[in-house]
Order: sequence, then C-alpha cells, then structure tokens
Amino acid sequence: MGVVISFEEEQAKAETALAHLQALVTDDMVKVNQTIILKMQSSVPLIPQLAGHLIASGGKRLRPMLTLATSRMCGYKGDRHAELAACVEFIHSATLLHDDVVDESDMRRGLETANELWGNKASVLVGDFLFSRSFELMVADGSLEVLAILSNASSVIAEGEVLQLTTANNMDTTEDSYMQVIVAKTAALFAASCEIGAVIAEKPDAEQQALKSYGKNLGIVFQLIDDVLDFSAEQEKLGKSVGDDFREGKVTLPIVLAFRRGDEEERKFWRRTIEDLDQNDDDLETAIRLMDKHKALHDTVERARHYGAIAKDALAIFPNDDYRKALTGIVDFCVNRAY
Amino acid sequence: MGVVISFEEEQAKAETALAHLQALVTDDMVKVNQTIILKMQSSVPLIPQLAGHLIASGGKRLRPMLTLATSRMCGYKGDRHAELAACVEFIHSATLLHDDVVDESDMRRGLETANELWGNKASVLVGDFLFSRSFELMVADGSLEVLAILSNASSVIAEGEVLQLTTANNMDTTEDSYMQVIVAKTAALFAASCEIGAVIAEKPDAEQQALKSYGKNLGIVFQLIDDVLDFSAEQEKLGKSVGDDFREGKVTLPIVLAFRRGDEEERKFWRRTIEDLDQNDDDLETAIRLMDKHKALHDTVERARHYGAIAKDALAIFPNDDYRKALTGIVDFCVNRAY
Repeated sequence: MGVVISFEEEQAKAETALAHLQALVTDDMVKVNQTIILKMQSSVPLIPQLAGHLIASGGKRLRPMLTLATSRMCGYKGDRHAELAACVEFIHSATLLHDDVVDESDMRRGLETANELWGNKASVLVGDFLFSRSFELMVADGSLEVLAILSNASSVIAEGEVLQLTTANNMDTTEDSYMQVIVAKTAALFAASCEIGAVIAEKPDAEQQALKSYGKNLGIVFQLIDDVLDFSAEQEKLGKSVGDDFREGKVTLPIVLAFRRGDEEERKFWRRTIEDLDQNDDDLETAIRLMDKHKALHDTVERARHYGAIAKDALAIFPNDDYRKALTGIVDFCVNRAY
Repeated sequence: MGVVISFEEEQAKAETALAHLQALVTDDMVKVNQTIILKMQSSVPLIPQLAGHLIASGGKRLRPMLTLATSRMCGYKGDRHAELAACVEFIHSATLLHDDVVDESDMRRGLETANELWGNKASVLVGDFLFSRSFELMVADGSLEVLAILSNASSVIAEGEVLQLTTANNMDTTEDSYMQVIVAKTAALFAASCEIGAVIAEKPDAEQQALKSYGKNLGIVFQLIDDVLDFSAEQEKLGKSVGDDFREGKVTLPIVLAFRRGDEEERKFWRRTIEDLDQNDDDLETAIRLMDKHKALHDTVERARHYGAIAKDALAIFPNDDYRKALTGIVDFCVNRAY
C-alpha cells in the first residue's frame, strides 16, 4: 500500500524544508549574527578569536532560527527576538566548547575544535564567558520570564551532561536512561528556544506550552538522529568522523538496542568495546554490522519519527501559515538528515 | 617612632577581625548554608556529591559574609540577602571547580580537588550546573539590578581568567597587566558581593558605589596576599602546597617584582623556570631567596596595604557601627593572613 520514497527524495525534501525556514527568517538572522559578533567582543583578544572560530564555523543556527520563527508565528512584531536568539546560540556555543573538552573531540563541523587549537583551558574559560555574556544579554532584555526559562534550561543541560558522564561505558543503560540524558542535554534548549517565542509575543499559556512541547520533541528527534549519524557514512559530509561515540564508549540508543537484541556473544563484544574500551581496528565495522543485523539504526530513526509526530501535532493549535509549515518541515528535515 | 607589632600580634588581630564578622552574621549564615545545601541538590547524584565535597570543605565563605554584612550595614531587614549570598558562593564555587581543572590542581583546602577525585569532565560540568543554578536563584529573587551586577561580574571573571592564561609563562608581564588580571578574576566578585548589599537595601547610588569600591579593593588585597601565601610556609596550614604558582609558571606580583629588580643572571633564572618551565628540585628555594633579596613578598604585602587603605576609606560614609567595624577589620584580616 505505502508509496515507496527513495532516500534521495527524502533528503531533497529535507533540504527544501531547511531552506524554507532559512528564507523566512533571513532578515532577522542578519540581526542575530550582528548581535553575536558584537557581543562576543572583549578586550581580551583570545575570546573573540576562539569564540569566533566556533561561531563562524558554519553551524546551521537551528536553535536561534526556532526562536525567530516561533515568535513570528505568534505574531511578534518587535525585535527582542533577535537578541534572545543570540542568547540561545551563545548558550549552545558555550555547551559545545565544554562538550568538546569533555569528549576530547578534535574535529567539529569539518574544522579542528577550539580545544585542539587553543587547549582545554581556554575552551573551558571562553565557554564560561559566552555563558555569562548570554545572561548579560537576557538581563538587558529585561524579561524575568525569559530569564527563568533559559536559566532553568541551562541547569537542566548541565544535569544532562553530568548524567551522561555517569551512563558512559555502562551497557546496562536502558532506553529510558538514555532518553533522560538527551531530553536534558539537548531537548531542554530546543524547548526553551521555542517557548520564549510565545513568551515575548505575550501569547497565552496554551501556546507557550505547545511551543515548548514542539521544541522538546524536535530536540529529541535531533539528538536521536545525531546518534544515528555517528555510525553513518553521511557523517563525514558534516565534517565529523564516523564512530566517535563508539570510540568514547558513549552508550547511545543504537548501541542500547543492538546490545539488548544481541546474543550472549554479541553482548560480550559490546561490554569489551564500550565498557572496557578495549577496541581493535575492525570493531567499529563489527559494531555497525551488528546494528544492521538488529535494525538498531533503522529503529532509532523510527523512534525519532514518533517524537517528530508529537512535535508536529503540538503545532496544530496554530494557524497553518508559512511559519507553521516551515516549523513542521523542520521536523522532517531533522529526521531525514539521517540519510 | 613606630610601635613595633610582632607578627603573632598581627595574626591574632586578624583572627579576631574574622571572628567578629562571623559572629555578626551567624544567624544569617545558617540560612545561607541551608540554601546552598538545598539548591545544589539534583536527581543526578554526582552533582551534590561533587559540589558538596567542595562546598563542605571549609572555605571561609568570605564573599557571602560580605553580602550579609553590607546589606545589614545598609539597614536591610528582609531575608533576600541570604539567598543572594548563596548565589555569590555558587558563582565562586563554579569558578573554583573550573580553576582547578585549568590549573591542574590536586589539592584545595587540605583535601584532594574534585577534578582529582571525579575527573576534569565532571568538574567542568558540575561547575556549569552551579553557575546555572546561581542564575536560577537570582531570577527567583527577581531583581534585574542584582542580575545585571552578578551577570556582569561573571563575564568579567571569565575574561580575567582568559587574560591570565595569556599572561602565564610570560616574564614580560607588567605589574599593570597583573593587576588587570586580578581585578577581573577576583576583585569583580568581591565588588559585586558588596554592591548588592546596598542594592537590596535600596540605598542611593553613593552607598552602592562605596560598597562596590570597598569590595573591589578588598578583593585586590585578598588576591595579592593569596599570591604571597603561595611562597610562604603559612600556606601549608591552609591545606595547599607551597610553590604551586611557581610550578605552573603563573606570573604573580612577587615574581614580577623579583624579576624586574633582579640582575641579568637572575632574569635568566626566571625565564628558564617560568617561561620554559624548566625547573629543578632546588629552584623553588632559589625563587624564594631571590624574592627575599628584593623584598618582593614584603612589597607585595605593602601594595596590599595600599588597596586595603582605599577599601577602608570607601566605608567612611557609613555610620561607624558594628558592621562597619567588622568590614574594616576584615581588610586587616586579609592583609595579615600573610603572616
């Protein structure tokens, strides 16, 4: 019964959805980028150098786009949204700098990481600076409600990152624990980015909660697919190497599923490679083969589709204008970038 | 003409000044400690474990005491000061966790550091948590003015820490550059801790500026003496080892002075040990001998006295009550802990 859609078609659709959102927020995004450049300045030259390396390295700016698009969808006419979108990107950038230190990453977005170029110390401290600077920007905006949402998101992100540390190298991690980590470390900032769109537009609580739910579920989709991509050849197109999570012993959902669906011998393989970090050259290949055998990557994408459907339904209370269509499309973009 | 006062007398006076301040804020401090314990809780057990290790390790809680005492001196009758004092301690604790990672320290306050016990990753992330949590507490307090002061202080601290990285291992560092670092990394939080006392008491700008100046200059005293203590046998009583700064090649004022006052051969010694970090077992002893020869430690204490005098004069516009006396005494405490 189902219509067969090729991966290429899915991917083309995904790219179109991203382009659609980008087109809608082009002018606002110029202001966001200006704010980012202006506010990362400091009398200490290393700060704009290091922050600029990360910020100019061509991330999609998905989170600030969400703040821009949700506020516009809510009929917001002012320009606070651009400054707040910059805050969101600053918080995200600060967490990336600290993540790369924690993960000992050497590549991001096809470039050497800041910690690789300037060392861990500078990355930790410039991360702290960006984080503080984002709060200064929020304080200048003056909304205690926005401050409450973003300061809470920041705490939750940090909790998620610590929780992830404690689940690393542990094959007893359940899908639920994994979900708890990604809801905190990734989905919380997506949720906050969208929720503040409704807040500054002074929309009632129903709209605010709807956007929070949209953002949260979209964030889950984003992270699930990120974890799939780590085992996919597509990853290399994003400037990252394949198998980073595997080499670090990070227990992501594809690994949780493959382990649980595997036999005793396979589980021994996962315990050796992930828990003991005792890995040989061909272990990554074996890991991917076992994932294929148990449809672990495929089913992680299926899980992502489930959360994506919730995200789309959360938008249903809004008029079906261009912004809603773009925000709906971005769910498909996040799912389909797996291919 | 001058009365000769022994080191022991100075030290006894210093301890009395600290005890005087502690006695005045005892009840309020109980509330601060309760807030700290309550707000460092998390569903992720590693967070209160790691944060609790640092926070319970017996710091003097000087910064929160300053918030308590300055607000009381300004006639504040409410209890917001206790929550805000906890915020200040959280920001301070977050910077300590990150500092110990950056400095690769293994001991603090006579205990192993958190990074030594739980690793750098956990220290970075729990630092982020405490920092975010402090902002949540400030948002709950609801004063945008307090938020502006503390978020700005946080940015300035991070800038100071980055600046310090770039001056490390550089013997061309001037006294001015050194001062720029310590004003940012240490004095900014002391200044903010005191300034918010006047803000919540709704005192006019003159009192607010006076307390900011008191705090800033007291913070400078504190850091100058900290840098002296690193070369003093007294240091070991504080649970730290002597010569940590020297071994890391941190260019503090005693080293700046000894280098500048030294002859060519001595300067070669400093370049080898501090810039090249090429150090032998007896180099620390030589460093201390050269500092003695050029009165570098003595004159750093003299510089501290100068800033201490400014701090005391900044308090002159306040009635000379017990709080002012205690805050004046704490300047002497900070100077005299050098002995």
